[in-house]
Amino acid sequence: MSDQSHLAADALCAAIVKAGSPVCVGLDPVIENIPEELRARHHETLAAIGEFCRGVIQAVRGVVPAVKFQSACFERYGGKGVVLLEELSIEAARAGLCVVWDAKRGDIGISSAHYAAAAKRMHAHFITVNGYLGESGLSPFLDVGVGVFVLVRTSNPDSDAFQNAKLAGGDTVAAMMARTVASLGRTRMGESGLSAAGAVVGATKAGEGAALRALMPDQIFLIPGYGAQGGTAQDVRSMLRQDRRGVLVTSSRAIIYAKPQVGEPWDQAVARSARAMAAEIAGVVKG
Amino acid sequence: MSDQSHLAADALCAAIVKAGSPVCVGLDPVIENIPEELRARHHETLAAIGEFCRGVIQAVRGVVPAVKFQSACFERYGGKGVVLLEELSIEAARAGLCVVWDAKRGDIGISSAHYAAAAKRMHAHFITVNGYLGESGLSPFLDVGVGVFVLVRTSNPDSDAFQNAKLAGGDTVAAMMARTVASLGRTRMGESGLSAAGAVVGATKAGEGAALRALMPDQIFLIPGYGAQGGTAQDVRSMLRQDRRGVLVTSSRAIIYAKPQVGEPWDQAVARSARAMAAEIAGVVKG
Repeated sequence: MSDQSHLAADALCAAIVKAGSPVCVGLDPVIENIPEELRARHHETLAAIGEFCRGVIQAVRGVVPAVKFQSACFERYGGKGVVLLEELSIEAARAGLCVVWDAKRGDIGISSAHYAAAAKRMHAHFITVNGYLGESGLSPFLDVGVGVFVLVRTSNPDSDAFQNAKLAGGDTVAAMMARTVASLGRTRMGESGLSAAGAVVGATKAGEGAALRALMPDQIFLIPGYGAQGGTAQDVRSMLRQDRRGVLVTSSRAIIYAKPQVGEPWDQAVARSARAMAAEIAGVVKG
Repeated sequence: MSDQSHLAADALCAAIVKAGSPVCVGLDPVIENIPEELRARHHETLAAIGEFCRGVIQAVRGVVPAVKFQSACFERYGGKGVVLLEELSIEAARAGLCVVWDAKRGDIGISSAHYAAAAKRMHAHFITVNGYLGESGLSPFLDVGVGVFVLVRTSNPDSDAFQNAKLAGGDTVAAMMARTVASLGRTRMGESGLSAAGAVVGATKAGEGAALRALMPDQIFLIPGYGAQGGTAQDVRSMLRQDRRGVLVTSSRAIIYAKPQVGEPWDQAVARSARAMAAEIAGVVKG
């Protein structure tokens, strides 16, 4: 089959240029946290979550280039939850947003091909993946035009024990994963000059960003952990390429659960919060 | 919440004793490979896959202790595929089979809790998980009574580059993961004397089985790769505990696509093949 992987990288890069800021809004909907008025309006949990997510998508379209769906939040409701996830993902893509399916899948090649088919069904541009099983589980996504963000260095505090372990050759485990991603990505370049094989690199691992950028020059870094989790502007800056590209900073709760001002509808609070984050990150990237 | 994790280990151990052989039948249905008569009978792909899986479940119940559903084979059909997966999983559990959800999930704690809810919905006893993000992503499954098989050493050929990399302290990456699993599992012991925190250890990695057993004395090893992929009886034996327990050998294609003899219905061929595999592995374990 023809390699279509450049499509994902180029779509994301174009969306970032258009939006003017590399921000991704994370949709991790939890029923207890969504606006009371939505919960009151719907008998069914999934109906409330669906209206909430649709509201967020409409509020952030045109403001940010991308949204990221946390698959677990939908899968917990079984098949019906996944049906909703698919609908929302397609709706987001049709609204001009790049869609990241945050599914952290990672399997052998043939199973990855099935997961890639699932990603295509939902019009996802990228999927987060786990490389523990080896490189051949990552290629099937790229082969059908779905970009990957490989988990390299995650933002959660307890990731250090494993990802930061030192190898005999001097690398950390995360650095070894980074080399795999860089190697895989070299043949998956978009016209944008960035690769469809990207990496998840948390903003909370101060000092590691620059080293990982050196190992992964062509990669887009999907960056969780900025703000609430302690990641700073300097952390993000350290991960930029020299051309100030190569990052996609993701934020979930601070945007989707933004507290409305008096009289402000909840979705306008989401839009306002997304605009503020976009402006802030645009400044970080420029500065 | 009360720790219910022992339930998964004890349920599996009891099922193994009852069936007399530690064999798990893998349900990785692919439409092209299922019997022609089923494909001819159904317009819809999922209807054919559903009838096929139901036939396999009925054919192997009472013969083997467990079945394993490859999630990707269902997810490729989106939400409807997951609805079917749930139905089949519940049906298998009600038929007295231990259910392994081969989903290879791996996320941070709160997302793992959502995935654990998904596992409970489908009555899964165990789920396969990836520990790259750290130990806190594994506990949420155990906390609600879902056992885990953590990917330690997988059977696919290209897993070596990552899993077999040497650490500064002398361990391999897989051995480091094994230590994490052993540590996590120590407080998750069933009355059976085995832990609900188990490990995936491929039969194809000759010579590594015994070392991983030494690191993980309390773990049940879910073992792919036996037979077709080259794993031998000796490989399985090297992973046994001294009490001849602690393994669950999984086989997919050799059983579910068993070739019928002349005049033999396809599901009787499946049952015959499962019985043969159960007898063979019973011999391996005893020998």
